[in-house]
Amino acid sequence: MTERPTRPLPHVAHRKGGTASAVRIVPEEIPVAFSYGGTTHAVMMATPADMEDFAVGFSLSEGIIEKASDIKEIAVEDHDQGIDIQITLAGNKRDALTARRRHMAGPVGCGLCGIESIEQALKPVASVEPEGMRLTAGDIVQSVKLLSSMQPLHTETGAVHAAGFYIAGKGIVAAREDVGRHNALDKLAGALARQEIEVPSGAVVVTSRVSIEMVQKTAIIGAPVLIAVSAPTALAIRTAEAAGITLVALVRGDEFDIYTHTDRIEIGRTAHVA
Amino acid sequence: MTERPTRPLPHVAHRKGGTASAVRIVPEEIPVAFSYGGTTHAVMMATPADMEDFAVGFSLSEGIIEKASDIKEIAVEDHDQGIDIQITLAGNKRDALTARRRHMAGPVGCGLCGIESIEQALKPVASVEPEGMRLTAGDIVQSVKLLSSMQPLHTETGAVHAAGFYIAGKGIVAAREDVGRHNALDKLAGALARQEIEVPSGAVVVTSRVSIEMVQKTAIIGAPVLIAVSAPTALAIRTAEAAGITLVALVRGDEFDIYTHTDRIEIGRTAHVA
Repeated sequence: MTERPTRPLPHVAHRKGGTASAVRIVPEEIPVAFSYGGTTHAVMMATPADMEDFAVGFSLSEGIIEKASDIKEIAVEDHDQGIDIQITLAGNKRDALTARRRHMAGPVGCGLCGIESIEQALKPVASVEPEGMRLTAGDIVQSVKLLSSMQPLHTETGAVHAAGFYIAGKGIVAAREDVGRHNALDKLAGALARQEIEVPSGAVVVTSRVSIEMVQKTAIIGAPVLIAVSAPTALAIRTAEAAGITLVALVRGDEFDIYTHTDRIEIGRTAHVA
Repeated sequence: MTERPTRPLPHVAHRKGGTASAVRIVPEEIPVAFSYGGTTHAVMMATPADMEDFAVGFSLSEGIIEKASDIKEIAVEDHDQGIDIQITLAGNKRDALTARRRHMAGPVGCGLCGIESIEQALKPVASVEPEGMRLTAGDIVQSVKLLSSMQPLHTETGAVHAAGFYIAGKGIVAAREDVGRHNALDKLAGALARQEIEVPSGAVVVTSRVSIEMVQKTAIIGAPVLIAVSAPTALAIRTAEAAGITLVALVRGDEFDIYTHTDRIEIGRTAHVA
């Protein structure tokens, strides 16, 4: 399968004026298997685009690697019903993953008790640098506006999430899309790592709501600010607070809410955007 | 922890008229561990409401049980940082799960190669009954309208998904909410099974987009129609086609699109709703 990320599909359109056959472009979603050293680690349902970025970003998010160069080779293999990404790790990371798998396996599944698993789900996230970067209210409004102009799949389908990286004075320096918001952010993380973009100087911008995983991924990326078009959960807010991340949400036109570490946002100043 | 499903949280509200401190009610999200016979099977991030329904619905979706009575006991245990749901299965289901776990465990994690896992992600879904139930265009419009009046958490927060079950002539007979759309549908599946609602006579109605998992869960529930407020993926459409499910999406006011098995929808007729 050499999949396109979108696909025109027929349907019956029921409208006020009557009912007719029509065609709509919908996002594709296929199983993507991540295999390390020939063994599958996980299968994600994702939009088939930017697979190399996805491989690097997923490996970072899962804690399998720490930097793009911990991966020696990525081979994207098309199959009948999905994509298998074969990842070859550098030696020390390969040994670490093998040890981790040995630890995980047991005669009754994951072998963890409930409380340990809950703690794992809430695993402490790396704290971002407290100093340095500031954004203005104008930067926040601009970042969302600029991202919306860099979403070709969403423009086609109206149904795809995006994650972008904004640097004051430079605008959105990278943007990735996926039918899943977590995947879009993993793809962005991979793109940033592969392009060696200076992350502490910018903000992650997402079109979606903010769950804990979005904050955890932002912390792993190392970005001090997370800007979201939609609403956060209470746990996402607590996690951003603990990680030192400024969480801005519900950006609608010129208005937005700041939930944590408000000192990074200079209200009343104009955008740095060039 | 005895968690409430929503929580008022302070923030800085940046508005056209100026900036001020404000409070917004946001949805809670906590780790929920599903433990069978004392061993954790999975941890999901979910909104703490309707935990017994979630336990039954998750067990159905995962294929661990076939009916609500396959579970002997559900104990919802509050912990500091999450909820542990201890599920005791009836004897035959307990033995089947133990055998499945033994099969899954191995020295290198899941032990599946990439292609087998991709096939597992696309596992064939049960086909729904082809005969019987019909809905009118009016039913579809009504179902979404009625569901929107049964979303107390969304009314509070503006950020929670809902899944409801619509029967022509009766309206929405059950509705459940969660910050995650898959969780909302699992909770609905559990509610339907526990209340022994006649599923082949109704439609699942969701406020979200439709990914393959939403169709797979609808098929496991056995509902012949899935109605969604938002857009489907191409894979969700293919899966609905294969499962014999009528997929209606993008319901906006009186307008909607029908993607598969259009014969169940009688266009131009008024609603059956009482």
